[in-house]
Amino acid sequence: MDRRSGSRFSLSITLTAFVEQNMKNLFMTRAIELSIENARSGRGGPFGAVVVKDNKVIAEGANQVTASNDPTAHAEVLAIRQACEKVGYFELKDCELYTSCEPCPMCLGAIYWARLDRVYFAGLAADASRVGFDDSAIYYEIARPHAQRTIPMIQMMREDALAAFRAWEEKSDKIPY
Amino acid sequence: MDRRSGSRFSLSITLTAFVEQNMKNLFMTRAIELSIENARSGRGGPFGAVVVKDNKVIAEGANQVTASNDPTAHAEVLAIRQACEKVGYFELKDCELYTSCEPCPMCLGAIYWARLDRVYFAGLAADASRVGFDDSAIYYEIARPHAQRTIPMIQMMREDALAAFRAWEEKSDKIPY
Repeated sequence: MDRRSGSRFSLSITLTAFVEQNMKNLFMTRAIELSIENARSGRGGPFGAVVVKDNKVIAEGANQVTASNDPTAHAEVLAIRQACEKVGYFELKDCELYTSCEPCPMCLGAIYWARLDRVYFAGLAADASRVGFDDSAIYYEIARPHAQRTIPMIQMMREDALAAFRAWEEKSDKIPY
Repeated sequence: MDRRSGSRFSLSITLTAFVEQNMKNLFMTRAIELSIENARSGRGGPFGAVVVKDNKVIAEGANQVTASNDPTAHAEVLAIRQACEKVGYFELKDCELYTSCEPCPMCLGAIYWARLDRVYFAGLAADASRVGFDDSAIYYEIARPHAQRTIPMIQMMREDALAAFRAWEEKSDKIPY
């Protein structure tokens, strides 16, 4: 390989990386745009998210907690639910999530259940906490033993509950997830 | 107070405690019933939950992940969403959740955002994991630093995202949650 084709090769790598980074910035810009619009509109908190598949946005979400009286209506949850509806499946393999802020534990759980490929986030949970949201507090609570949590968690009737797991194991035509 | 009225008093405390425990068992029995029915029906995983307010069940949920192609459709999330719809508010103060299994991190997050008073659970996350669910794995992931998680989490454009939090702070008629 002569020097000229070598430099063309590395130029092409650089160009690909440049285009890819540019795409990422565009997707994140859209998530942030949603978060700002949402804060101004008063529909919910200042959070936005998009799901991307094959370099295309397939779903968008902005926090609707107060507008829809639904504490689970976070941007990421809404974007994930919409993306699943679009692909007609309960998993989002080969998809990426761009979110204007680090996901709270609820949204992080949803991301794992949806089995997304990758998550890009902009603001930190600590940034959200600074303007009054409980993201960091909930991360702290999750790490504590049941008995020490601010919302008491009390165990009872475990033996009875195991019947459901036996029924699940016995079901031959179940759809695991 | 003579001995007779003293014993009537302690009998009444015992009776109240008995009735209360009985009510709790009834609510949990309903959550477990939902979980078993659900496992058999094939609509989703073997999980059920109810929300209780003033000693009455105001909402019920059973896992619908596979039936509705919605990875967030866990029993607790559905019961919380339904209860919020019923009370017409995004919080469930003075409400309790009974769930057939220890909530996964997503549901635990939803419980904190809904600000429930208390959670009763029957099976353990480890019981769910034994029959193939990722509950324990997701608890483990949440505790790990971003860079070590199985779903990569990449930060970018934090400065741009902070504009949304400024817009939130500036909005004088916002509804905090």
